[in-house]
Amino acid sequence: MLNKDHPLNRLIEEIKKIPGIGAKSAQRIAFYIIKLPMEEVEKLSGAISAAKRDTFYCSTCNSLTHVDPCEFCTRDVSEDEILCIVEEPFNISSIQKTGIFKGRYHVLLGTLSPLRGVGPDELKTEKLLERVKKERFKEIIIATNPTVEGEATALYLSRLFSGFDVKVTRLAMGLPVGSDLDFADQVTIKKALEGRTELSKE
Amino acid sequence: MLNKDHPLNRLIEEIKKIPGIGAKSAQRIAFYIIKLPMEEVEKLSGAISAAKRDTFYCSTCNSLTHVDPCEFCTRDVSEDEILCIVEEPFNISSIQKTGIFKGRYHVLLGTLSPLRGVGPDELKTEKLLERVKKERFKEIIIATNPTVEGEATALYLSRLFSGFDVKVTRLAMGLPVGSDLDFADQVTIKKALEGRTELSKE
Repeated sequence: MLNKDHPLNRLIEEIKKIPGIGAKSAQRIAFYIIKLPMEEVEKLSGAISAAKRDTFYCSTCNSLTHVDPCEFCTRDVSEDEILCIVEEPFNISSIQKTGIFKGRYHVLLGTLSPLRGVGPDELKTEKLLERVKKERFKEIIIATNPTVEGEATALYLSRLFSGFDVKVTRLAMGLPVGSDLDFADQVTIKKALEGRTELSKE
Repeated sequence: MLNKDHPLNRLIEEIKKIPGIGAKSAQRIAFYIIKLPMEEVEKLSGAISAAKRDTFYCSTCNSLTHVDPCEFCTRDVSEDEILCIVEEPFNISSIQKTGIFKGRYHVLLGTLSPLRGVGPDELKTEKLLERVKKERFKEIIIATNPTVEGEATALYLSRLFSGFDVKVTRLAMGLPVGSDLDFADQVTIKKALEGRTELSKE
C-alpha cells in the first residue's frame, strides 16, 4: 500500500522472499526493525553480511564453517570412529542438541530425488567415499530424514559402503516421544512395530 | 551448538531478537540467508540499513515516511475532510488495503495504558488537536484496536473532540466475516447484537 520507492516497502519485499514469512509477518518484522535503535539495526545488517561473507563449506565434512577444517572435524571427541551422515548443514545442530553423539559428521548437501533430477551421479559422494576409505570408521550412522528421499538415499549409501568393513546403521523410526498413538500415521506405527525393542523384566 | 564466534551463530542471535521468531525459525532463516547469492544478501542487508536510515515520522500525521509531509498527507483524495486515527503506523496499511477509505490519517503512536504507565499526559495529542483545529474535518473515525486500551483511547479522544463541531465515529465491532457464531466470544457477540443493522426488505 506504500509507495514502491518507500525504503520500508523495499525492506518488506526483501523480507517476504524468506520462505515461511508471509506478507503480514514481513510487515511486522520491517516495522520492528525501523523502531530499533540505529546501533541494533547495524548489528543486524552487519551480522547478515558477515555470516554470508565469512561462512563456507568445510573441505572435509561440508558443514558450514568459518575455519577450515571446521570445529566438528577438529574437536576432541571420544568416538571419532563413528561417522554420522546428514542431509544439510543445519541437521548437525539438531543432533548436537541431544548431547549424546561424540563422533564425526558428514554433510551430503542433498538427497537422491528423481523428481528434482538428483540421481546417484548428481549426489556428490566422492569426498565421502574417500573419507570412509581413509579414516576407517567402525560405524556409519545414516541420519538422513525419514522421508521418501531420505530413505532412498540411506539405501543407496548403505550399498555404496557394502565393500567396506564398517557397520552401517540408520536412525530409528517410530512414535515421537510425548505423542499419542491415536494421532500417529499408519506408516509410523508400522515402523514402530517393526523396530520394537525388548523390555528388561528386572 | 555452534561456536559462539561463528558468524552464523551471531546472525542467529540477531534474528532471534525479532519478536515472534523463535530459535528454530531463526536458524532456518539464517541458513536460508547463507545459501543466497552474495548479491541477494547485500540487497537484504542494504534494505535493512536504508529503511532505518531513510525513514522517519511524518511531521503532520506521524506515519512512517521517507518524504515530509508523507504520501498520505499529500495524496489527492476525494474525502480530505475525513480523518482516520490509528494507533501505529502499520495500521494505515491495513485500512489502505480495503481500498474504500479516501481521507487523511493520523497516527497516535500509542494508546492509553495505565498498566504501562501511559496516561492522557503521556499520549501525545497536541499535534492531533492542532490539526483538528486547523483542518476542520467533518468526521473523525477512531480506528484504534478493539482492545481494552484501544477502547479507552477511543473514549478519551471522543471527549477531547467534544468542543469541536465534528462527527466522531468508531470502527464497528461484531462478528468477523467468514467466522462462525459458535466460535465467537461473548463480548464479540454482545457487540454484534448492540451494533445490529437493519436489512432492507426490498
